Amino acid sequence: MSDLERRLAGEILAIRAIDCHSHVPHQAPHARSLADLLGYHYYTELAHSAGMPADAVDPRRSEADRIAELVSRLAAFDNTVQHSWLVEAARELFAFRAPRLTAQNWTELAQAVAEAGKQVHRYRTVLAKANLEKVFLTNRFDEDLAEVDSTVFVPCLRADDLVFQAGDADVRRRLAVKTGTEVASPNDLRDAVGWLFRYFTGQGAASAAISLPPDFAPRRPDEKAAAKALARAARSKDLSHEEADELAAFAFETVVQACAIVKRPMQLMIGVLRNVYPEGVEGGRDLLSHRGSLIAYADLFRRHPDVDFTVSVLSAAWSHELATFAWIFPNVKPSGHWWYANIPVHIENELRARLEAVPKVKLIGYYSDMYKVEFALPKFNMYRRILARVLARDFVETGLMTEPQALEAARLLLRDNPKRLFNV
Amino acid sequence: MSDLERRLAGEILAIRAIDCHSHVPHQAPHARSLADLLGYHYYTELAHSAGMPADAVDPRRSEADRIAELVSRLAAFDNTVQHSWLVEAARELFAFRAPRLTAQNWTELAQAVAEAGKQVHRYRTVLAKANLEKVFLTNRFDEDLAEVDSTVFVPCLRADDLVFQAGDADVRRRLAVKTGTEVASPNDLRDAVGWLFRYFTGQGAASAAISLPPDFAPRRPDEKAAAKALARAARSKDLSHEEADELAAFAFETVVQACAIVKRPMQLMIGVLRNVYPEGVEGGRDLLSHRGSLIAYADLFRRHPDVDFTVSVLSAAWSHELATFAWIFPNVKPSGHWWYANIPVHIENELRARLEAVPKVKLIGYYSDMYKVEFALPKFNMYRRILARVLARDFVETGLMTEPQALEAARLLLRDNPKRLFNV
Amino acid sequence: MSDLERRLAGEILAIRAIDCHSHVPHQAPHARSLADLLGYHYYTELAHSAGMPADAVDPRRSEADRIAELVSRLAAFDNTVQHSWLVEAARELFAFRAPRLTAQNWTELAQAVAEAGKQVHRYRTVLAKANLEKVFLTNRFDEDLAEVDSTVFVPCLRADDLVFQAGDADVRRRLAVKTGTEVASPNDLRDAVGWLFRYFTGQGAASAAISLPPDFAPRRPDEKAAAKALARAARSKDLSHEEADELAAFAFETVVQACAIVKRPMQLMIGVLRNVYPEGVEGGRDLLSHRGSLIAYADLFRRHPDVDFTVSVLSAAWSHELATFAWIFPNVKPSGHWWYANIPVHIENELRARLEAVPKVKLIGYYSDMYKVEFALPKFNMYRRILARVLARDFVETGLMTEPQALEAARLLLRDNPKRLFNV
Repeated sequence: MSDLERRLAGEILAIRAIDCHSHVPHQAPHARSLADLLGYHYYTELAHSAGMPADAVDPRRSEADRIAELVSRLAAFDNTVQHSWLVEAARELFAFRAPRLTAQNWTELAQAVAEAGKQVHRYRTVLAKANLEKVFLTNRFDEDLAEVDSTVFVPCLRADDLVFQAGDADVRRRLAVKTGTEVASPNDLRDAVGWLFRYFTGQGAASAAISLPPDFAPRRPDEKAAAKALARAARSKDLSHEEADELAAFAFETVVQACAIVKRPMQLMIGVLRNVYPEGVEGGRDLLSHRGSLIAYADLFRRHPDVDFTVSVLSAAWSHELATFAWIFPNVKPSGHWWYANIPVHIENELRARLEAVPKVKLIGYYSDMYKVEFALPKFNMYRRILARVLARDFVETGLMTEPQALEAARLLLRDNPKRLFNV
Repeated sequence: MSDLERRLAGEILAIRAIDCHSHVPHQAPHARSLADLLGYHYYTELAHSAGMPADAVDPRRSEADRIAELVSRLAAFDNTVQHSWLVEAARELFAFRAPRLTAQNWTELAQAVAEAGKQVHRYRTVLAKANLEKVFLTNRFDEDLAEVDSTVFVPCLRADDLVFQAGDADVRRRLAVKTGTEVASPNDLRDAVGWLFRYFTGQGAASAAISLPPDFAPRRPDEKAAAKALARAARSKDLSHEEADELAAFAFETVVQACAIVKRPMQLMIGVLRNVYPEGVEGGRDLLSHRGSLIAYADLFRRHPDVDFTVSVLSAAWSHELATFAWIFPNVKPSGHWWYANIPVHIENELRARLEAVPKVKLIGYYSDMYKVEFALPKFNMYRRILARVLARDFVETGLMTEPQALEAARLLLRDNPKRLFNV
Repeated sequence: MSDLERRLAGEILAIRAIDCHSHVPHQAPHARSLADLLGYHYYTELAHSAGMPADAVDPRRSEADRIAELVSRLAAFDNTVQHSWLVEAARELFAFRAPRLTAQNWTELAQAVAEAGKQVHRYRTVLAKANLEKVFLTNRFDEDLAEVDSTVFVPCLRADDLVFQAGDADVRRRLAVKTGTEVASPNDLRDAVGWLFRYFTGQGAASAAISLPPDFAPRRPDEKAAAKALARAARSKDLSHEEADELAAFAFETVVQACAIVKRPMQLMIGVLRNVYPEGVEGGRDLLSHRGSLIAYADLFRRHPDVDFTVSVLSAAWSHELATFAWIFPNVKPSGHWWYANIPVHIENELRARLEAVPKVKLIGYYSDMYKVEFALPKFNMYRRILARVLARDFVETGLMTEPQALEAARLLLRDNPKRLFNV
């Protein structure tokens, strides 16, 4: 590593970052046991991928059994960057000194995690160590946000259910309970969604987020067809595939319009195929395909110039499209490196492309996507180091940036852009 | 940067290059005002992408206002490689010393550009500084080529209108005026196109060029269907989508056959979707999709073994296909790095792949695609430095080439191959 | 090159590797003349790509003429990695000292090859120099395996004919001769395939292998439709496209089931389009398309959790999919870098992605795909050096691995994983 890269890495580690997408549960944000760390889907799915039966981590087994099982599997995938997150979290957050977790030493770490987990506001300490100022949550639409600790957390409305399950009886019931509206017409849905956005933004929410399959194509909805579908749903009828599709198109548009009204960005996370491998462990059943294209979203971006779309794509094969769409559309902001693309080789390539061709004020560098705050540190540190590497090798050394310019770009990506775009 | 890389860069900067694709207007090839530089679509579109309203660069606004507006937006995208082109051009061609253009200093550069612009044959000085021997133009089929300065420029027939608008009344009228043929049948179109190719090659033209959408699929045309479409067009009827499609297939084939007759390469620029974002600034409305595949061209390459196709693809997701097609088909020559792929990360990957697996005598390294000659220097210099980097790191240091071999490859890519392939 | 990289390269060159996929003919595994080396399709196709007429290497021409022709063409593609294989093989295996092969010196190499070719068990010497322990063959289903030299070779059943030509009269005749079963029904096919797998495994075969077009989609077969197709084939009727398709689906499933029964992996080589360029030289007529998706195989991977699928994809655009499918599905093992993806830039990217996110115990690093054993050394050496480069730069230097961990990963990829997975 060059001196330049080392210097940049040091400075970048000192930037207090914003994490604009996570799945941290606000009632239990930090780990209370080692199982909370090892239970992260990356470890269960990689252990399963390497041969562990899926039912070895069945929650009906004792926590100790599950931990011992997973620990015994770690050696099979200790090459992965995900494994390195675990080791770095153990070392930096729990003063765990061994180079790896083994059958012999895991109880020591388990004890440290259990002890630390009892501290009041432990998650604040953990996030401070990760040098994060704020972490966005992803909340169900009927979640009670009153107790969210707004000193570190920012709510965010997860719109998946509203868009793809608006015809589902349970979703409709939950929506009625929360908003007071029995949704039987397009206007009802608009009212209910409007109510939710007012509630969420009133509680400090910064945006809505939705994950989408690679073949989803937003379109100007057919309101009559949506009305028919909603009327059927209100009569407890199952919707045909086509009706469900019309309803989703309308509900998606309604959510986007609500974003426009409350002036909040919409987080599009494009490209996930759900439950491709149902026999897998929980959280390890979804995959991607490089099929589809961002061109399906061009019309959406045009029709809503007043809505900022922060966009993540799951397939690395889409990353050129994302960079070019952000280069042309004012309201498209590339955001982080999602899930299966969140590994150094893809981060490095995507980051370089975006820094070379997209206005720096539009780039959201990274988000953790974590389920427990302990992973903020190793995930963000991985990104900070890659950012230093790319800035050093491909920008400062090639003369495209001076060192101060490189640091300014880093501050934008990690902090200033998410603060400004999400108004936090 | 290693000594090796520095040495190679120095030698490569000294190679007198051929630029086989540009949009330089031969009557006004160099900038006469700073607006001519800042008006390059990269700057207007990146400024718009970063928040500038599209109408801020409406030509009805005064030049000074447009310049001031754009200058005020530069800081938002001074990370991009496109911004670096502007700075390098200002420094190297106009002795502009400030590290960036600001509200305070732009009039100084504006004055320098205006002064230099008055010099007789200024464009020759500019191209000499860029170390280019020849620059290809892209001419409308009815452009008068008599005044083209053949000491530096080489005409090239743009075939887009002929292929995709052969049924359009205005195109047909222009064609009749230019060639003397009222096109009402396939043979008429063959005659008119033949006339144009004779005229163009008579004026020193080196090739024909066409840009194509990602889903275009050349095919053996149905001449009867084309005849029907042309007959309808001759009666001023609008063509159905299908008729237009049959006519395009026939016109494309006709152009390829004309290339065969005059023994000139055909430049295929594949993958652009036009007017995806009509609200954007001029030149900043087109985009790409990774959909489609070069396999749609396999039949074309087979049927015309006597025509050299120099091929550029717009989507980086197609670059493996292009390298492999060039590896197998004798008449497929990968050409440069086009538009949205013309940034260092993609150039580096594509260049490396081509140098690793395609005969070096077939590679056209780079073209500028510029609209004013001032951008030849920074764009070619960017490429020359990347070429030095790739040759140093991935060829000489790994033992695949000696240093003299690396320089020979560079000379082929920048100069000898385009000279030989286009016979200039 | 850093000291670290050099050290790793030295250690990695010392690992005795397993080559799990080649096309070496067991009766003539090593070169007997220089034409056997220069006749490798890479050289004939690159020479043709660079301008040599395809019939210049017609087997009816004398060997000396063909050699002289090819030698005269080498300079046109001496930039390619394929050319470097030839030079390295000549130097390391035949003590050829000139830096390149020319019209002046080729007879010297030809003599050395002819001399060496006469040595008894020359191929063993060659493989020992390449530091390979075993080389897998790819055998026709009716090949006689009795004479295979099992000290170095491992048979492997090529299933292409069985799956895609099961309705072909000649294939059916060969199948009847070999297995004693006249296939007229699904059960007959099951019996015949079962017989073949017993024969092959009895002769030490390690797996079955098949190459597949990019749009192939394995599916739960319709046995009735397959029965109808087989009945027609048994009556010497030509099959419709749809019948052939139903039969292929059934035959593919039958082969997979046979793999399950004998507990052997199935090698899937996905993405080749055959005979895209029929006018090309032999072996240089096939190409790829980035169309299609590994998602078409998800159902197969689910339905056969007991079969290990070692998977290669031909298009680099699919490599993210392959890494993620291997990350999630226990029975998907990424295997090497196939054909058009077997060049350093793609190997480096794919290797890095797999090492970052797939359990190390699942990765098969490399196979030669060679037709003569002489290419094992340069091809594997290319891979060994890239492996050292990636491990040094992206794992050890970044802190993801220690140096001993890097070497352990290398041993798994080159030796331990193929030994364990294929049970050799």
